[in-house]
Amino acid sequence: MKIVIAPDSFKGSIRAADAAAAIDRGIRRALPGAETVLVPMADGGEGTLDSLTRFGGTKANVQVSDPLGRPVDAEYGLIHGGSTCVVELASASGLELIAAEERDPLHTTTYGTGEVIRRALDAGCRQYIMAIGGSATNDGGAGILQALGVRLLDEDGQPVGRGGLELQRVAAIDMGGMDARLAESTFVIASDVQNPLLGPYGASHVYGPQKGATPEMVAVLEQGMRVWADRILEATGLRVHDLPGAGAAGGVGAALLAFFKAGMRSGIDLVIEHSGFMAHLEGADLVITGEGRMDAQTASGKTPVGVAREARRHGVPVIALAGSVGPGIDPLYDAGILSVHSIVNGPMALEEAMAQAGELLEMSAEQVIRTFAGMVSG
Amino acid sequence: MKIVIAPDSFKGSIRAADAAAAIDRGIRRALPGAETVLVPMADGGEGTLDSLTRFGGTKANVQVSDPLGRPVDAEYGLIHGGSTCVVELASASGLELIAAEERDPLHTTTYGTGEVIRRALDAGCRQYIMAIGGSATNDGGAGILQALGVRLLDEDGQPVGRGGLELQRVAAIDMGGMDARLAESTFVIASDVQNPLLGPYGASHVYGPQKGATPEMVAVLEQGMRVWADRILEATGLRVHDLPGAGAAGGVGAALLAFFKAGMRSGIDLVIEHSGFMAHLEGADLVITGEGRMDAQTASGKTPVGVAREARRHGVPVIALAGSVGPGIDPLYDAGILSVHSIVNGPMALEEAMAQAGELLEMSAEQVIRTFAGMVSG
Repeated sequence: MKIVIAPDSFKGSIRAADAAAAIDRGIRRALPGAETVLVPMADGGEGTLDSLTRFGGTKANVQVSDPLGRPVDAEYGLIHGGSTCVVELASASGLELIAAEERDPLHTTTYGTGEVIRRALDAGCRQYIMAIGGSATNDGGAGILQALGVRLLDEDGQPVGRGGLELQRVAAIDMGGMDARLAESTFVIASDVQNPLLGPYGASHVYGPQKGATPEMVAVLEQGMRVWADRILEATGLRVHDLPGAGAAGGVGAALLAFFKAGMRSGIDLVIEHSGFMAHLEGADLVITGEGRMDAQTASGKTPVGVAREARRHGVPVIALAGSVGPGIDPLYDAGILSVHSIVNGPMALEEAMAQAGELLEMSAEQVIRTFAGMVSG
Repeated sequence: MKIVIAPDSFKGSIRAADAAAAIDRGIRRALPGAETVLVPMADGGEGTLDSLTRFGGTKANVQVSDPLGRPVDAEYGLIHGGSTCVVELASASGLELIAAEERDPLHTTTYGTGEVIRRALDAGCRQYIMAIGGSATNDGGAGILQALGVRLLDEDGQPVGRGGLELQRVAAIDMGGMDARLAESTFVIASDVQNPLLGPYGASHVYGPQKGATPEMVAVLEQGMRVWADRILEATGLRVHDLPGAGAAGGVGAALLAFFKAGMRSGIDLVIEHSGFMAHLEGADLVITGEGRMDAQTASGKTPVGVAREARRHGVPVIALAGSVGPGIDPLYDAGILSVHSIVNGPMALEEAMAQAGELLEMSAEQVIRTFAGMVSG
């Protein structure tokens, strides 16, 4: 039996690669002779770089600035023989790079991600996949532009600083110094976020708080973001104010769409296309996927559904494992998911389940494979 | 697909019949056309009477004494065309008949169960299955004997009262008035308890506390039980002191084995034999069983294992659902269990899981059947 193991990470608990390894151990307990292929998935957030470079890709290490301007060892990926570069925003500008008490979207910046792009441009890359989930920032992507030669000027013609707080001071955007190689480059943004840049559903209000913004800070960030949107309109002619997806990653979506040759695509679709997942489906009897929580909301664009859509095209059934299974999952069946099993093996606290995720994945994968294969021992 | 649904109760949470109905609902969501047979199981404790009378049996209602001497509506069952009577100790003498604060094994008595037997004797029954789990008592079965004409006399030749506290006052047992019809009757005791009557593994020490005994009360009960064992030896010639099983149901095992024509059998084996379970296995594709907790200890004599042993003889795979799945369940596979799935669908407290057991059973049965049947919709 050939089984493709393609889970996402279980957020806050276990990375996709470790989840896949745990599921693999469980499968081997049930079916020692099974052929397994581990294809850890991601949906455009953290882990996307790992997922895309796992089969035949390479990684390059670069020292750049973290969200607070400190040096950080980041990386980017090269796939398809080096023709495509994968940049994960979280690698240089991620929330996990800073301590909980350091979260401060007034000052965190995506500058480091701009530096990563600059280094990739130096290396000759002209096609980019941008995985923009997991950012610590609400700077409208201004930091990326600043690192790539775009000058953001205040009323006196002086460059403003970095971070969301500075955006309200931007009086003009000078694109004269922008890295010329960007004009030859294309960017595909991996994101499922449909939020606009501004307003109650915009970046500051929806995502600001999880990056450390108090209600007062949200108001300041929103005000700055409005100024920033107006300046982008003046500089590029693109009205990002209400543009779906412009609010992704604290407004990084707006900057990439306005200043670069960029388009957005569903994160999971990009990962499926570029991770080798499709090739591994050939001859497979089963796919096991999973993520932290699956419920009625999972039907739209999350990893298990993306995996299932592709697997169905190849006629391969998909079983999903989840830390928590909510009600209303029937639509998942129509997407090609055979069944959804919780990995939790009894009453326990969330923290306990998260700490034991590897063991629980292993145990539940073993039982699920036994049930699926219908084996009676002895 | 024909599926036999044969769970035990999930202790403290859901009765076997309700568990079976919930599993049935889940199966119907997954496979609306499935043929299902509901065979709620029991292992000699509460629910045994229901389980044994479900297919072709009848029940008779009798008003007798509860563990504290108050009137209670109890019942016994008649199976195999009325030739065999099923008496469930819990029906007249069960822990669930009294409030938590009334638990008092110094005074609770099995007298009511003796009355039930007397009424069944009146009705002509001479073959008995005694399901003795779930008792509120630690009276060594003295109450049963008292209700059936056996006189327990103190040093002055006066009858002692009822309950465990009285046992130490028993100076002699007068069997002269014992119901003569008992000599024509046989009793099969459904029990998996191997505890002796006395000592650290005896009835008083092991089961007294859960019936309300404080450490001081346990000492008194043990002292009385020792006197009782000596009197039984004098009266019947049987040494019940260390007899395996004599400690079952607060010493009811000792009384039945010593005074009646009685033998013990595994509860689940008796239920399997007399519940019609075997006949339903004909043509079945799958059995679903389950109980509250399954772990390394479940391998010895519990319902899922008994069910699996029988199902294996018929070549039918068995999937078990449990509220909680512990480690070390590999031996269950050798007993014929295909797989064990927890019904818990995410991190939650024990109370929450117990309160939602029906829903959780339904949801997990649906997913397990989908996985087993390997259906991909659409």
